[in-house]
Amino acid sequence: MAKRVDHIGILVSNLDEAIKLYEDCFDVQVEKVETISEQGVKAAILSLAQGAKLELLEPLPGSNMAGVLEKRGEGLHHITLEVDDVDKELSRLSRRVELIDKKPRHGLEGMVAFIHPKSLRGVLVELCQKI
Amino acid sequence: MAKRVDHIGILVSNLDEAIKLYEDCFDVQVEKVETISEQGVKAAILSLAQGAKLELLEPLPGSNMAGVLEKRGEGLHHITLEVDDVDKELSRLSRRVELIDKKPRHGLEGMVAFIHPKSLRGVLVELCQKI
Repeated sequence: MAKRVDHIGILVSNLDEAIKLYEDCFDVQVEKVETISEQGVKAAILSLAQGAKLELLEPLPGSNMAGVLEKRGEGLHHITLEVDDVDKELSRLSRRVELIDKKPRHGLEGMVAFIHPKSLRGVLVELCQKI
Repeated sequence: MAKRVDHIGILVSNLDEAIKLYEDCFDVQVEKVETISEQGVKAAILSLAQGAKLELLEPLPGSNMAGVLEKRGEGLHHITLEVDDVDKELSRLSRRVELIDKKPRHGLEGMVAFIHPKSLRGVLVELCQKI
């Protein structure tokens, strides 16, 4: 089962500008900035005083995510739910929804797997198990 | 300043079906279901074990939100950040971003105000002060 929303992924065209904007508007703290080549993004994790974080994502040139940005524009991209055991959840959910990742892969903060948005009313959901 | 993500708004075409799906997939609990005529939606608040909640939103027939659903389809719609004083935040933010609501209005869980997504990299942000 999902324990909590770990973070909300937001697609942006320029990470540095977006970080400054969100810092200025909402007083968030930059926790880390990292390139995740496997997912085709440069990502920044922004934390609030408590709870779910914001993850700003700038696509790397030529990546799939660059195509997503071009097609859909900036904005909300996915939500990430923390689970205790991502393998177990994938196995349970595989009977209910279409999985993008049949096996977990390495993400910014643990092992992750994505569920197809068409199975979840248009919402791209990432499951994450902290390691 | 924003304290935390209160909830994530998800636009759906059928609230009852969406509630069942999210209950089945993620073991969320339905906290309340209510019609918010002012916002043109029937809404369900779903809570996880901790932290930010999910808010499923089905547009009322003929509402502005029905038009949004038709145009954009189902999916992530907004994020709601809890603040201590929504009036004060609106005043501070009005110099930085375009506000949809210049004054707070009644929402499902307090006084709320929306910021225009074009000011925030495509993300519709709702500020909420609990009452």
